Amino acid sequence: MENFLVLVDIGNSRFHIFKNGEIIHSLKPLKLDGDVFYISVNEKREKEFLALNPKAINLAKFVKFDTSYKGLGIDRIMACKSVESGVVVDAGSAITIDVMDNFRHLGGIIMPGLRAFREAFAKISPKLDMEFTKIDLLTLPTSTKEAISYGSIGAVVRVIESLDDKKIYLTGGDGKFLQEYVGGEFIEDLVFRGMIKTIKEEYENSFAKR
Amino acid sequence: MENFLVLVDIGNSRFHIFKNGEIIHSLKPLKLDGDVFYISVNEKREKEFLALNPKAINLAKFVKFDTSYKGLGIDRIMACKSVESGVVVDAGSAITIDVMDNFRHLGGIIMPGLRAFREAFAKISPKLDMEFTKIDLLTLPTSTKEAISYGSIGAVVRVIESLDDKKIYLTGGDGKFLQEYVGGEFIEDLVFRGMIKTIKEEYENSFAKR
Repeated sequence: MENFLVLVDIGNSRFHIFKNGEIIHSLKPLKLDGDVFYISVNEKREKEFLALNPKAINLAKFVKFDTSYKGLGIDRIMACKSVESGVVVDAGSAITIDVMDNFRHLGGIIMPGLRAFREAFAKISPKLDMEFTKIDLLTLPTSTKEAISYGSIGAVVRVIESLDDKKIYLTGGDGKFLQEYVGGEFIEDLVFRGMIKTIKEEYENSFAKR
Repeated sequence: MENFLVLVDIGNSRFHIFKNGEIIHSLKPLKLDGDVFYISVNEKREKEFLALNPKAINLAKFVKFDTSYKGLGIDRIMACKSVESGVVVDAGSAITIDVMDNFRHLGGIIMPGLRAFREAFAKISPKLDMEFTKIDLLTLPTSTKEAISYGSIGAVVRVIESLDDKKIYLTGGDGKFLQEYVGGEFIEDLVFRGMIKTIKEEYENSFAKR
């Protein structure tokens, strides 16, 4: 079964596809072979995807997750699900920062993604419309480029640092970049690990019910 | 002379006018009587303003300010100019956070303003398009509304807190709101105080030159 297992994480800007141990990022939905399981945070993209893959199964209805957070995104649930204790950072269109303690979700924070920060600065003034640079958080910025980089990358780092001194797990497009500042472990397939765990739990559960 | 002194701070979204001890915020340029001195960070708005006030004097050419920051905005210079030592936060379209030490500017950070954060979230997903709420930084958010508020207001607070333990001076449209989180002193006319100081210095300087 594992050979034909295909997992899809439908985000706000991309489709992330896990297939044969590889991750593909696609701007458009793809028609997929095999047993397709998916999660989605974007209804419009989900419809486009289901039009091509009508038999795909939404894992949202099967997942079990311990949290008192109202309306926690399914992608965040999946990223957190395989983490026992730690800070889970998913740096994509938005940057979500969630805290897990003994497989219980304690709460979380949402920040704009680095591209969203970049666009926000550009919209405020053409003078702030420039690429970020790597920053040194121990030195105060002395140029606009450094100042906006500190005010976005640095802000994300300061929020993460202010949380409990737990191990940090990072994923998402900017996860590896942020790891340089906050340390911890970058796990590219963190969301997919949660999806696989959900499938396994449901599988064991249906056997138990027999 | 003081009675007829009119100061104008031309920002990216508003004209801030200091007249008879009062501050007026205007979306459009106004025709003003008296001796008009101004600063501007927005060329287009400056042109509109000068069309109505052709005799207005730009204080940027007179100001003396000790910094190694390249391209520091004139509004930030003026806000910092009257502060001997401390952290100067100007919370407008952008939030600037500058550090002064013994009348020397050590550097500064630029973050998106709270409205810019709000718009950035709305652009990422309609699910994140909601007003901020007041937050408790000691408690992890357990709803989207709390999570985005923590990820914007809280991020600004964390960046300010991470700086040296100096007195905090706040100004700008969201300055009073941020003061609730970081403490310090809110000074509505902080930029204008720097402008007045600049005029006085230039005045004394021209007497000295006789």
